[in-house]
Amino acid sequence: MKQFINEDFALQTKAARKLYHDYAEQMPIYDYHCHLPAELIAADHRFENITQAWLYGDHYKWRAMRTDGVDEKYCTGNASDWEKFEKWAQTVPATLRNPLYHWTHLELNNPFGINDKLLNADTAREIYDHCNSLLQKPEFSVRGLLRKFNVKLVCTTDDPLDNLEHHKKIAADGFEIKVYPAFRPDKALGVENLVKLNEWLDKLSDVAGANIKSFSDLLEAIKKRHDYFHENGCRLSDYGLEYAYAENYTLDEIEKIFEKIRTKQNLNSHESMKYKSAVLHEFCLMDAEAGWVMQLHIGALRNNNTRLFKTIGPDTGFDSIGDWPQAQALSRFLDSFDKKNKLPKTILYNLNPADNELFATMLGNFQDGSVPGKIQYGSGWWFLDQKDGMQKQITALSNLGLLSRFVGMVTDSRSFLSFPRHEYFRRVLCNLLGNDIEQGLLPNDLELVGSMVRDISFNNAANYFPMAIG
Amino acid sequence: MKQFINEDFALQTKAARKLYHDYAEQMPIYDYHCHLPAELIAADHRFENITQAWLYGDHYKWRAMRTDGVDEKYCTGNASDWEKFEKWAQTVPATLRNPLYHWTHLELNNPFGINDKLLNADTAREIYDHCNSLLQKPEFSVRGLLRKFNVKLVCTTDDPLDNLEHHKKIAADGFEIKVYPAFRPDKALGVENLVKLNEWLDKLSDVAGANIKSFSDLLEAIKKRHDYFHENGCRLSDYGLEYAYAENYTLDEIEKIFEKIRTKQNLNSHESMKYKSAVLHEFCLMDAEAGWVMQLHIGALRNNNTRLFKTIGPDTGFDSIGDWPQAQALSRFLDSFDKKNKLPKTILYNLNPADNELFATMLGNFQDGSVPGKIQYGSGWWFLDQKDGMQKQITALSNLGLLSRFVGMVTDSRSFLSFPRHEYFRRVLCNLLGNDIEQGLLPNDLELVGSMVRDISFNNAANYFPMAIG
Amino acid sequence: MKQFINEDFALQTKAARKLYHDYAEQMPIYDYHCHLPAELIAADHRFENITQAWLYGDHYKWRAMRTDGVDEKYCTGNASDWEKFEKWAQTVPATLRNPLYHWTHLELNNPFGINDKLLNADTAREIYDHCNSLLQKPEFSVRGLLRKFNVKLVCTTDDPLDNLEHHKKIAADGFEIKVYPAFRPDKALGVENLVKLNEWLDKLSDVAGANIKSFSDLLEAIKKRHDYFHENGCRLSDYGLEYAYAENYTLDEIEKIFEKIRTKQNLNSHESMKYKSAVLHEFCLMDAEAGWVMQLHIGALRNNNTRLFKTIGPDTGFDSIGDWPQAQALSRFLDSFDKKNKLPKTILYNLNPADNELFATMLGNFQDGSVPGKIQYGSGWWFLDQKDGMQKQITALSNLGLLSRFVGMVTDSRSFLSFPRHEYFRRVLCNLLGNDIEQGLLPNDLELVGSMVRDISFNNAANYFPMAIG
Repeated sequence: MKQFINEDFALQTKAARKLYHDYAEQMPIYDYHCHLPAELIAADHRFENITQAWLYGDHYKWRAMRTDGVDEKYCTGNASDWEKFEKWAQTVPATLRNPLYHWTHLELNNPFGINDKLLNADTAREIYDHCNSLLQKPEFSVRGLLRKFNVKLVCTTDDPLDNLEHHKKIAADGFEIKVYPAFRPDKALGVENLVKLNEWLDKLSDVAGANIKSFSDLLEAIKKRHDYFHENGCRLSDYGLEYAYAENYTLDEIEKIFEKIRTKQNLNSHESMKYKSAVLHEFCLMDAEAGWVMQLHIGALRNNNTRLFKTIGPDTGFDSIGDWPQAQALSRFLDSFDKKNKLPKTILYNLNPADNELFATMLGNFQDGSVPGKIQYGSGWWFLDQKDGMQKQITALSNLGLLSRFVGMVTDSRSFLSFPRHEYFRRVLCNLLGNDIEQGLLPNDLELVGSMVRDISFNNAANYFPMAIG
Repeated sequence: MKQFINEDFALQTKAARKLYHDYAEQMPIYDYHCHLPAELIAADHRFENITQAWLYGDHYKWRAMRTDGVDEKYCTGNASDWEKFEKWAQTVPATLRNPLYHWTHLELNNPFGINDKLLNADTAREIYDHCNSLLQKPEFSVRGLLRKFNVKLVCTTDDPLDNLEHHKKIAADGFEIKVYPAFRPDKALGVENLVKLNEWLDKLSDVAGANIKSFSDLLEAIKKRHDYFHENGCRLSDYGLEYAYAENYTLDEIEKIFEKIRTKQNLNSHESMKYKSAVLHEFCLMDAEAGWVMQLHIGALRNNNTRLFKTIGPDTGFDSIGDWPQAQALSRFLDSFDKKNKLPKTILYNLNPADNELFATMLGNFQDGSVPGKIQYGSGWWFLDQKDGMQKQITALSNLGLLSRFVGMVTDSRSFLSFPRHEYFRRVLCNLLGNDIEQGLLPNDLELVGSMVRDISFNNAANYFPMAIG
Repeated sequence: MKQFINEDFALQTKAARKLYHDYAEQMPIYDYHCHLPAELIAADHRFENITQAWLYGDHYKWRAMRTDGVDEKYCTGNASDWEKFEKWAQTVPATLRNPLYHWTHLELNNPFGINDKLLNADTAREIYDHCNSLLQKPEFSVRGLLRKFNVKLVCTTDDPLDNLEHHKKIAADGFEIKVYPAFRPDKALGVENLVKLNEWLDKLSDVAGANIKSFSDLLEAIKKRHDYFHENGCRLSDYGLEYAYAENYTLDEIEKIFEKIRTKQNLNSHESMKYKSAVLHEFCLMDAEAGWVMQLHIGALRNNNTRLFKTIGPDTGFDSIGDWPQAQALSRFLDSFDKKNKLPKTILYNLNPADNELFATMLGNFQDGSVPGKIQYGSGWWFLDQKDGMQKQITALSNLGLLSRFVGMVTDSRSFLSFPRHEYFRRVLCNLLGNDIEQGLLPNDLELVGSMVRDISFNNAANYFPMAIG
């Protein structure tokens, strides 16, 4: 049997192979959105075993295991690391055609050099031992891994409460790979649970040295944190939304609503929407004024399983794709900034692929010629971060916008082993372009097309974002 | 001209052909959802001619004929059987690229052995006579046809009022192919027409030996029918919904609404929704308690043409795809059972392909590791039961769930000649997998992939459903 | 480097090439929907340069330029024609994979004969001069261009206020290519701006020799214009809608609402919807009674950018795809005519591709066998008028209706250089069919399939529309 993962994996045509090997492969990685824990980078952590590096926190794998009939004990429960790995290995052959099957073997290949066998019940022990022994080596520390993957920059995702001590340590260390925070103040939107929201506001009061009694106090405190993040290199915000919150409001209205929040009186849906609209608008204005890039991740329906939410909490694999109307509110939202000449560079990510074309045409409404690719259509996100999803995102962007200005891929991952997703993306991109060339749909000019590949792989992001690579 | 329908039809690659011929082809058929009339199986009916077997009741063909400008007389009207066949034959060449073109020729090939000519005006008479003479033979009786198609099990779709006499007769006969009823109580939801609903409730009163005055009377009567179906081998329910009805309600509220129903006072939309939510929830709880599998067919917009509904009634080809929001209500609905640890095995079928990914991710929210593939994403349904629709369903399931656990295809048909849809599905499946292998996207390990093909063709269904195959 | 645009462009298989060259290529063009200015045809205008013929009014190109970072000055501003062309030429390489890249080079090839070079900064001057010198020739006048493209008929898009003087002149001239108006009364729906709406009603009063005080006055005036258009060869209406307006109303209600409109009292959303429903229903009844074909263009979210709308107005590239629910209202709307046996031939165009299958199945609800292909699914519109969008429209129609009855492509363009979009469409169509043949999914019978190609290219439209070709 020919090797499954080989150097020409997923590259169907000669043109695709040339594009990948001559243009994409050697470009460094600019990972402007992920969920890596800065603490582990600061400490240059070494993982005890591959279960800790690979399975802890990976809700994609847990979902697959549960679907395959594996008990929760082996996902988030108290089974041993080896038992968890073994159950995962047994599940892998059941993931044929799922992105996990590709990710798994790409990640075993790089960095672990395993490309002559597939993970399954029979090979589990051998692969476990092999990976674990490599993970003991200094070059497999988390900094070592980032170097191996040719990463130039990473943006983590951080609560405004974060004191950024780990980011400071990393910078102070002189680590050659840039690790910047990104500002994700979603918790300020959490009116569904006023107890939690007030706890968060209290902590923010402490951190910002403020006493948040009013909405304007909140804005002042957030502004301090925004400034603090800016001082620490942050140039990027991020918001997770069901849809754009874009109701009209007056600050008077919001102050009254905020008083209800602070006194834990439940809001009606109208008040909730006004409050969320105000938070989103006012916070994003700070992004605009600071010259940051704003990211909107839109459309997740979260925490669908009450029973398992109660036992194992959020972000454990019980989220799915929502289907709220998106267009009108998103247009109104973006227009509310543009009207004031205060629309920042913006990246829109959608979770429901039925909305791909809607999103891809939304960009054009606010491209004003001031900056190439000012409004971006973000790469296939979460459930769409797979070959089919990436192809559809690339194709929608190609047809309805300018692919050539795309800032490209992100890992969006919690794991230091996920960087081969950039490799995967580049293979998918080169494969699409190579097919087009072989079918005569693009000029057979590899330098022309290859230069676009290089731009999408790295250069566009490096030019677009205001973060220094050093 | 090469034969159009040949043994390698729709199989583009060598790997696809190997997968189909070595793994899929010989698997028997487990048809867990169809609309075959049990009466004809009980009587081992023989059709007089192919029009009766093929065109009567086939709204797919009628729609195509009407679109082609054929008068209603030749669809549901009083033209002779030959005239109807002739008009259909004339329409066939106009269906190029429609699934009818493939279905037609697959069905003429199997069981009628016609693969050297295409159906059209010129060949109509010859094909008509050929098929009719075969239909006179004992082995072309409906039981004979089921045997020819290597069917092991069929589940019909039945109203709770049904006395199941035909199913009993079939069982008593010792027919080696299992024919079970499925419980479809949609009529209980029909608050749009209170006259019809009350008629149905009155009949249910009779059948269940009850006097249904209250909602709890209704539940009691339905429970009796549920038990009766269970005794007769039923382990499967089915609901046809526009979207999941999942409003909160109290039984007190529902009793008041039910009184309005029984006294034919029209409900407002709020009351309708509460009532439907109550019916759906309480009925499905019975499925959970009996260990049945629950099917939800979601998203049809029915009876759009008032003029033709009045003259020729429902299920005659005037339905289409709806676009209601689905995610939140469906999540709430499934969660309402899961919270109580009473979520049965469930199969979700969607009609609007824009919702494919939404549905495919919904599964994962309720896969709890208790049973492999507990929540299933049903095969391409109705308008989506064609090559493109099946490919999209398979691909969404592959990317967002586990294809390997899929319980596979159903005919969903009223015709005894529709079983080649299983053949068609298997060809499509093998073709997708074969392409993946040839492109290096799946390991070139035919035993690994072929074993998945066998499972999806038959084994998964046989393991998943609690019906005995005998 | 092989020529990018060559005679086999976009035709992957031998069957596709045969279908295109032997069946599609020589068919004339029946362009039943476009936005060409009749005035220029009446005057047999010659363009000074390619910028005027190609860039003026082309919001597709402007959007791409803005996305590429080009200042508004070079799009709609006061830069010179050469500067505008140069900026466009610089943008072209950034449009790789966008339909603009194909359209641009198809249009430079035909009619300008440029197929040995690609447009970019280096070739801009040479191409500019070459095209401009050709545009000076008499055979490059607008009538000359229509002849070159083998056009048989063009329908423009006209306000009921239009006096059709240009159409009259064209007819009087004996121009051998038919140029008919189409009736687009969208402005009557414009309740969002009562000042503009009243201005329009006042002008209509003048033109129709009426004094429009009531809704019945409006209907009378519109009927006069409808008759006037009919006398001038119009057999086609067109409506641009967000979704079908299909509320119940009484004429009494509408008269009251109309009084508010005429006295500039803002309507609430309920009143707006009733009024729009009344306008749409009553106007379309006139289409039915006159035997016209009705077109509905559904789903655009327009004028999203307030800032640029204020400076450069509508139709300048700030529109996008909306996501309103469509199915129920559209069904109710079509049914409201069908109930009365007054549903005209209808063409439905959708802008959100997530609704493709919904629309394609909606047709079938109202195909009544009276006319082949009575209800049509319109070709890929606006943002969907590209290879991927056309493929999806063709495939949805194929699977859910009868492709063979399709009336085919329109340019929908403001430019006399856009006719190669018919060529593009035919290549895409032949390529799909050719692939199907080579994969054995269609019979290898070129005459059978080729005859369908000819029908879709021209014959179906010529048979379907009640306009004379002469």
